[in-house]
Amino acid sequence: MSNHFGDRLVDAVKSKRTPLIVGLDPVYSRLPSAITSRQDMNDEFDVDSAVDAIFDFSTQVLRIVAPMVPAVKINIAFFEKYLSQGIETYYSLISEANELGLEVIGDVKRGDIGHTAEAYAAAHLENPELTGLEDTLAPDAITINGFAGAESIEPFAEKATKNGKGVFVWVRASNPGAAAIQDCVCEGGQKVYEKIAAITGDIANKPENIGKAGYSNIGMVVGGTSPDETSELRKKYEKVWFLVPGYGSQGASAADCIRFCKKDGSGALINASRSIIYAYEEQKYKDQFGDNWKKCIEQAVIDAKLDIAKAVQDAF
Amino acid sequence: MSNHFGDRLVDAVKSKRTPLIVGLDPVYSRLPSAITSRQDMNDEFDVDSAVDAIFDFSTQVLRIVAPMVPAVKINIAFFEKYLSQGIETYYSLISEANELGLEVIGDVKRGDIGHTAEAYAAAHLENPELTGLEDTLAPDAITINGFAGAESIEPFAEKATKNGKGVFVWVRASNPGAAAIQDCVCEGGQKVYEKIAAITGDIANKPENIGKAGYSNIGMVVGGTSPDETSELRKKYEKVWFLVPGYGSQGASAADCIRFCKKDGSGALINASRSIIYAYEEQKYKDQFGDNWKKCIEQAVIDAKLDIAKAVQDAF
Repeated sequence: MSNHFGDRLVDAVKSKRTPLIVGLDPVYSRLPSAITSRQDMNDEFDVDSAVDAIFDFSTQVLRIVAPMVPAVKINIAFFEKYLSQGIETYYSLISEANELGLEVIGDVKRGDIGHTAEAYAAAHLENPELTGLEDTLAPDAITINGFAGAESIEPFAEKATKNGKGVFVWVRASNPGAAAIQDCVCEGGQKVYEKIAAITGDIANKPENIGKAGYSNIGMVVGGTSPDETSELRKKYEKVWFLVPGYGSQGASAADCIRFCKKDGSGALINASRSIIYAYEEQKYKDQFGDNWKKCIEQAVIDAKLDIAKAVQDAF
Repeated sequence: MSNHFGDRLVDAVKSKRTPLIVGLDPVYSRLPSAITSRQDMNDEFDVDSAVDAIFDFSTQVLRIVAPMVPAVKINIAFFEKYLSQGIETYYSLISEANELGLEVIGDVKRGDIGHTAEAYAAAHLENPELTGLEDTLAPDAITINGFAGAESIEPFAEKATKNGKGVFVWVRASNPGAAAIQDCVCEGGQKVYEKIAAITGDIANKPENIGKAGYSNIGMVVGGTSPDETSELRKKYEKVWFLVPGYGSQGASAADCIRFCKKDGSGALINASRSIIYAYEEQKYKDQFGDNWKKCIEQAVIDAKLDIAKAVQDAF
């Protein structure tokens, strides 16, 4: 397997024939009752019980989706609630996903400057070499917040490049309120998110960051919910992978999201979280599969892949 | 003790007679040899040994500074490197600091939108009520990143207000490169950081967030290194506590930082991290106290308090 994150994504997207990735945001109260009714997992307010249930659910989801998608995005926020046990679970899931051949993106949105950014980078972009943690893997890539400029991106980029990992800088959020800051037009006509994209692009385009397939290991997170504002980014940053949240539960359509793909289908990862992992809550899947929650998730992935494939066909 | 974070800060600053707070950014390789030469703590590359050393050092620092400063800021980045054991250590230190009567700020810079922001808020601004975690305390306040607008601030503010805790929104970073984004002038003449300040100010000024002393529990992080750009913020947001990094190692002077204080000394917390906790590396303290590293730290706190007190006297 390539030691370059951008190259690995090209291969993974080609082999799974889709830019769709699945996001894991597991919340105990929404887990299937088949899991939460088990005696060792039935207490939401007991930390052992809760993390066991979340781990069990998440590993089953990983096994369902692994043959169908190139990558998963694991959102650390939903694990931090369980403090150290949550973090242990987060890393266990990274290992599970890695063994299943998935690229793993840690959605951590870390962001700070100087020696703090270096500490975060060491924590999240380096397989720990400490005695006692030898078996732990860091994710293949993480999301970061580059609001404090190049100095809040470079420490992560350097660590990622050194370790064959990747970084997605949060350039434009998918929520409506983000526009109040990120769409502000600055002197010279550039919007704030365009400035962050430009700073990120300069780092992404450094020769040492470009892989054999022509992509950088430094990418951008751009919400699929604001396609008009952001469709220029694809053209402008040819070597960049885009991580596109917002498809599904947040309201972005497949057509909105695939604007970040190139003609060959590479260049963007389109993330769906809740619309996939909680598919068993939806009437249309209930009608089809009853309480077979795994079948519901599987079908939701198939449906999303078809939806996206059709949008790609229509667009190119 | 008041259940309002803003009120508690007023009392704490008054009782310790200083706005100086101490930041904990512990790095194993810089710990005093008195600690790292101990047999159970002498292996930087063994996770148990490393976290034990960091915990031992940090608790000793807390005991030294507790009688002298109102609050400490614990930077989670330096604990995340040790994964779940690091997180356990972080929470242990919060409890230690709390028992010593210190207000505790978790410097976590978390930031995301919607249900992810809610998950982070639940993780960091709520004492866990889960069986197995009953003895764990969340910090009194955390730092957050509000780059995605009001929707990335409100979930934290609501949780903080409900639980008697506080939030500091990162408005203006202390690094030079931050200007490339945060000082951009937008249409209408407002800079980006002023926009974030305005969004934060609207939330801070909500009546339910204001305590008896007239301060909000929602504050702002503004670097002391850019006093010219930011001295207007103090006047504009009367009810806001400012958390001011940059004093000491990052180069801001006491005079730069105390612009965020009011005449009575309230209104700002001036943070010094490395210049205090690694004072024993400095020649002037070595000359005075030899290898008594605790005395060096104590004297560094005394010196910083005097330096700040003099600046306050000169300014008002």
